[in-house]
Amino acid sequence: MANYLGRIEFPCTIELGRGLEGAITNITKIGFVDGQGGRLIYRGFPIEELCENSWFEEVAYLLMNGRLPKKAEIEQFTDQLRRSSELPEPIMRLIESMPRDAHPMNMLQTAVAALGCYEKSAAAVTHAVSNPASALAGEIEVGIKILAQVRTIGAAVARARLGKPLIKPDPKLSFTGNYLYMMSGERPDEVTERVIDVCMILQADHGMNASTFTAMVVHSCLADMYSTIAAAIGALRGPLHGGANEAALDDLQSIGGPENAKAWVAERMAKGEKIIGFGHRVYKAYDPRATVLKRYAEKLCHQKGMGKIFETAAAVETAVVESMKAAGKPIYPNVDFYSGLVYQAIGFPPPLFPVIFAVSRTSGWVSRVLEYLPENRIFRPRAVYDGPTDMKYTPMAQR
Amino acid sequence: MANYLGRIEFPCTIELGRGLEGAITNITKIGFVDGQGGRLIYRGFPIEELCENSWFEEVAYLLMNGRLPKKAEIEQFTDQLRRSSELPEPIMRLIESMPRDAHPMNMLQTAVAALGCYEKSAAAVTHAVSNPASALAGEIEVGIKILAQVRTIGAAVARARLGKPLIKPDPKLSFTGNYLYMMSGERPDEVTERVIDVCMILQADHGMNASTFTAMVVHSCLADMYSTIAAAIGALRGPLHGGANEAALDDLQSIGGPENAKAWVAERMAKGEKIIGFGHRVYKAYDPRATVLKRYAEKLCHQKGMGKIFETAAAVETAVVESMKAAGKPIYPNVDFYSGLVYQAIGFPPPLFPVIFAVSRTSGWVSRVLEYLPENRIFRPRAVYDGPTDMKYTPMAQR
Repeated sequence: MANYLGRIEFPCTIELGRGLEGAITNITKIGFVDGQGGRLIYRGFPIEELCENSWFEEVAYLLMNGRLPKKAEIEQFTDQLRRSSELPEPIMRLIESMPRDAHPMNMLQTAVAALGCYEKSAAAVTHAVSNPASALAGEIEVGIKILAQVRTIGAAVARARLGKPLIKPDPKLSFTGNYLYMMSGERPDEVTERVIDVCMILQADHGMNASTFTAMVVHSCLADMYSTIAAAIGALRGPLHGGANEAALDDLQSIGGPENAKAWVAERMAKGEKIIGFGHRVYKAYDPRATVLKRYAEKLCHQKGMGKIFETAAAVETAVVESMKAAGKPIYPNVDFYSGLVYQAIGFPPPLFPVIFAVSRTSGWVSRVLEYLPENRIFRPRAVYDGPTDMKYTPMAQR
Repeated sequence: MANYLGRIEFPCTIELGRGLEGAITNITKIGFVDGQGGRLIYRGFPIEELCENSWFEEVAYLLMNGRLPKKAEIEQFTDQLRRSSELPEPIMRLIESMPRDAHPMNMLQTAVAALGCYEKSAAAVTHAVSNPASALAGEIEVGIKILAQVRTIGAAVARARLGKPLIKPDPKLSFTGNYLYMMSGERPDEVTERVIDVCMILQADHGMNASTFTAMVVHSCLADMYSTIAAAIGALRGPLHGGANEAALDDLQSIGGPENAKAWVAERMAKGEKIIGFGHRVYKAYDPRATVLKRYAEKLCHQKGMGKIFETAAAVETAVVESMKAAGKPIYPNVDFYSGLVYQAIGFPPPLFPVIFAVSRTSGWVSRVLEYLPENRIFRPRAVYDGPTDMKYTPMAQR
């Protein structure tokens, strides 16, 4: 059970910590975060296999359908994504009208919620109360559509905050290629597209993280997919979740160089402060996503004249890992520590880091809520009440 | 522990069911759903005490602050709500521009998310990563503001879907009075205002229900209050949560009269179908909110010439309670069974039932997330993975 691998039967006896640590939401075939072994699995495939061989559309298909697609299947899936790429005009106008200093994640949440007002499908699940599974086929269609739409909104948000005109998708480009094209107005070179595509693969799913969990809870009420994904974006907007790579990058920039890393780490630790980008609730070994991203970060940073900040990161890693090992609490960098460097080297502005995360993770959100739908049960934990229960109302004058 | 009353220490051993039944999110002083005793407590006060003596603003103050206000305190609180009642012009235009056939809850979620793009406070918590408690004072201000704003949006949505011009709040009216005024354009009579105010009190908080829980999860990532409340609205939009009273009313209307109730119940039960408006995950006794609402429903329905549907409801209640008792599974009506009748008698259109629920529950959402903030820990349960872990990627041609 320590590994969360295999089957369990409900009800079961568990050890529960704060923040629902140890609680089990459901049994899944979608993905596995192997905390002890430092592995991340999607539908049976170690993440390294997919980063090496696959591409985002195929990974999204895999997550949603449970197996790698045949040629005709991926063609149809890619075509469905393409046909859903454009946004209704009012949504484009809404994104353009937002204040330029709004946080991109607030903009993303607003636009996705607004789509729920325009898409007829948003009302469909309402009628599935007595038989949630009956809504599944329709919901799969909506899931594919919303994945393409969130990507287009993500790019539109990046344009709108710079006051630039929005760009429509180019049907000849890949999912990720289109994302980059609609953001920058330029068709990406092969290396950039591949690096970002790998980042998209790495962030597509990660067990019952807070945003995926939010999507599960909201959809368990049989809310429509737009309400659901808008809610999940709200969670990812939090700096403890989707904003951690931006914060980690801020720290690296403030350190000034690899020669200051050791002292900076020591000072943080002496104050008992958390070092962002290290440790993870689940991983007790090296985060496999960090392994992949570190290689890319090293290569890209040196290419783009950002060698110093990469060396700073490496020095911070060494200092943290060594001093925590000495303290008997081994801790390693997580995905957030190196992903910010990769995005920075590619030229992404930091406030957009959580947006690309959201675009990718939409595939995981959709897959997880659809898997739960046929066995749907509303999530309803309890709080423990520590207070009186029989107080009498006192009139104002007597308070 | 069966009562979820008192204190517990984490980690603790619990019995966990599907849908996180039995899981414990935190220790609270805000409210208690006494499932065995059929009681609902806010900050020590049984709900009946508050329905009898208090009013919505005071109950919202109580939930947020932990005690009944002195005169100067409630005046200041009421003034804060008043000053936050008006929406920025772009939000008003956004609401007016939405398709008239959109679901009101999708409209509400969109407008609340959009406010997060206009309110400077939405970015504030970003900086509280290392010390969440430091954000508390600012978050309380935002919490009061958003309560007033959600109310104004709720009324605006009701107007916009009828194509009517939006109405600005009248500072001389109460919180609930203003809600009704901005919806209908008429200042409500005393009885109507009081009935709706009691409904607002009854729906303000209800333990760790799915929308409150959603708010807790999203805010535990340190997302801003607008992202958080928009997410909670997403959950409440689900027909299993905020839509249940509309569904229950639909059923009552379809039955046709009290003489058909017994046969209708028998047929449903024979098919093994759920009867909406009965039973509750927590209450194993009569839902105390249903007791209050049943009295109002009876009075109002007879006043408004809806006696037949009330009698139908009463006959359904008798039939369900008696046959379930005979089957050894006592079950009672919940809040949803009678609240729809009350709203219908007052003249609320059914698609707006979850909106008034959201306006009221915002007070509970805000109170609960603020209580958790000083001891914040991100919610991160686990799923159990049941699948392979070592698959090799196969080229397309070999699939």
